[in-house]
Amino acid sequence: MKVTNFAPGPTPVPDRVVRKMSEPVLTHRSSEFSGLLRQVTSGLQHVFQTENDVLVLTASGSGAMEAAVVNLLSPGDRVLAISGGKFGSRWVELCETFGLDALTLDVAWGKAADPDEIDRILAERGPFEAVLATHSETSTGVLHDIEALGNVVRGHGCYFVVDAISGLGANELKTDEWHVDVALTGSQKALMVPPGLAFISVSERAWKGIERNTLPSYYLNLKRARDSFSKGLTPYTPAVSLLMGLAESLRMMKELGLEDIYRIHERNALVTRAGVAALGLRVFAQRPSNVLTSVSMPPGIDGSELLKTIKQDCGVTIANGMEHFRGKYIRIAHLGYDIAPSDMLVALSALEHGLSRHGYAFESGAGIAAAQRVILETG
Amino acid sequence: MKVTNFAPGPTPVPDRVVRKMSEPVLTHRSSEFSGLLRQVTSGLQHVFQTENDVLVLTASGSGAMEAAVVNLLSPGDRVLAISGGKFGSRWVELCETFGLDALTLDVAWGKAADPDEIDRILAERGPFEAVLATHSETSTGVLHDIEALGNVVRGHGCYFVVDAISGLGANELKTDEWHVDVALTGSQKALMVPPGLAFISVSERAWKGIERNTLPSYYLNLKRARDSFSKGLTPYTPAVSLLMGLAESLRMMKELGLEDIYRIHERNALVTRAGVAALGLRVFAQRPSNVLTSVSMPPGIDGSELLKTIKQDCGVTIANGMEHFRGKYIRIAHLGYDIAPSDMLVALSALEHGLSRHGYAFESGAGIAAAQRVILETG
Repeated sequence: MKVTNFAPGPTPVPDRVVRKMSEPVLTHRSSEFSGLLRQVTSGLQHVFQTENDVLVLTASGSGAMEAAVVNLLSPGDRVLAISGGKFGSRWVELCETFGLDALTLDVAWGKAADPDEIDRILAERGPFEAVLATHSETSTGVLHDIEALGNVVRGHGCYFVVDAISGLGANELKTDEWHVDVALTGSQKALMVPPGLAFISVSERAWKGIERNTLPSYYLNLKRARDSFSKGLTPYTPAVSLLMGLAESLRMMKELGLEDIYRIHERNALVTRAGVAALGLRVFAQRPSNVLTSVSMPPGIDGSELLKTIKQDCGVTIANGMEHFRGKYIRIAHLGYDIAPSDMLVALSALEHGLSRHGYAFESGAGIAAAQRVILETG
Repeated sequence: MKVTNFAPGPTPVPDRVVRKMSEPVLTHRSSEFSGLLRQVTSGLQHVFQTENDVLVLTASGSGAMEAAVVNLLSPGDRVLAISGGKFGSRWVELCETFGLDALTLDVAWGKAADPDEIDRILAERGPFEAVLATHSETSTGVLHDIEALGNVVRGHGCYFVVDAISGLGANELKTDEWHVDVALTGSQKALMVPPGLAFISVSERAWKGIERNTLPSYYLNLKRARDSFSKGLTPYTPAVSLLMGLAESLRMMKELGLEDIYRIHERNALVTRAGVAALGLRVFAQRPSNVLTSVSMPPGIDGSELLKTIKQDCGVTIANGMEHFRGKYIRIAHLGYDIAPSDMLVALSALEHGLSRHGYAFESGAGIAAAQRVILETG
């Protein structure tokens, strides 16, 4: 059976990108490669909305998170780690691993961090060297208010480090305007390239912190990367075929423009949420990201069982809630601008099918109809 | 103009592998992915000739080298780093970065490490925790005698860690039989997949060392990888499309068999060396690897200029000598079993063309003719 994937990454790879990645792999020590690297760097600056350096790592997003910590911070540094889900908790794990003096702010899963609370903590429990936050928390579907947080953090003179892995390119993120010193993402989300590359922007302020850092690093060392990039090279063999695909994907994103790309994500999110609401279901995220819609399960429905049915009967992959929320909510992604609003009807239809099979009472077709109305109204 | 690449990686990717990588990217949290991971692990054990765990990292080979150091060793550990080229010197850099007490054995570029000398050093300057070595040194074209070194190192009870990035799958490497505790390689060499994945085998003995290790690691943490792999998962999003290609490439390697694959590499190496010798040129490597042939430049010929001419006039990419040997020798790769002996004639023809242009005196066509004879004799 055909399998259609609505998990939040890897996202569907556009045909143009697939074709580029099928071309012979460039040698990474050639003028052709240097040209590719320059093109990719400039395309990434466009999507990051930054004039800062943006460096490419051959790693997944978690590698870039480690790079942020081990390059910018030193053992004993006081940092505030905001954790509102599985991916926020990676910041906490990284701080523990590398001996930082971390205060963890546990935001309830499904809720967004409150900028006023962060302001109070920074004033009362500081001084802090850095604040580590998440843009779109993939485990809950929450979009944190990076603009407001950025103003607060800059007011206290801390470095602001943002995991934008799933969100960048789907929800607005103005790296420079919002005072984000380090932002990072991965290739397999809104950039629509298979996983294996991570990207990290570093502000001039952050480079100063990196200069006096004492944690050792080699493969993920950012100074080493910057030095090589300035010569059109990478310090280690990069994932060249993925970079070739990325250059194409960034070209497509430039052609379309960021505003239109955000609008596509927003529309797909609105379509999905309308369908979910019409089925009498609630969105789990209080401040929903346009990356995915997390749907709380009604009493009596086990999300894990529901997803098994949906996969088996409809060939549709929807993601489960994570950790202690497994089975409590499900996550329907609409990530990557190569998804049409009508594609979301496939997910909603599968959801309706599964809910019927599991005895949930609702008017069959109501979700699809509501979604279809939003498609018409926003077209 | 058509460009043909004879640089030692990325190697040509077979069509079957390209096609697999063009399929929709699997979700990395699915039973399909777990099946793929199991298949890849078993295929890698076959190529590594090991029953040890083989773990996959989304990184280039240098990431796996760092993983070996930071997982197995602790600050202050006494280690012997054998450096006979640019890639051997990465071991030295890693030891310095992570605070090991490293004794560096500088083997002259172009020479192989002498097992008797290593034996003496281990006896007289020890005790050592580990010996860090290179299988095929890509910067010089030398194949180190890992079998003999393995016997020596095991005799002194040290861990034996081998960078087999360019050599594994091209030159014999019997991980278990030769007492290699940690062997590592990358996807873009004899495994014929684009760069972005690294593989590392860990012996039972080495796991004991890893258990008592004190260096912090997160993204490259091997225990974390082993725990996830045992559940059919990776700890972080892996480079899934490259893994899909790798599964196909490993299937092809199993179909053909390792012995035949080594023979193909050996034949391509013999063809190339015969051509080079017939032009009156010398191979730079004393103990040549079947990965590449390093060719010393005769008096009056600047290798860098020669390679520029070859690239411009013939569309052929041959690699330069590295660091202080830039321009002193050139490196013609014959890496990956998807190269036919007759493909090497393209490289030799380009070499002859360049030598003519740069005023080197030789009988035109002599290299090609000698190579052609070896093709006939070994066919």
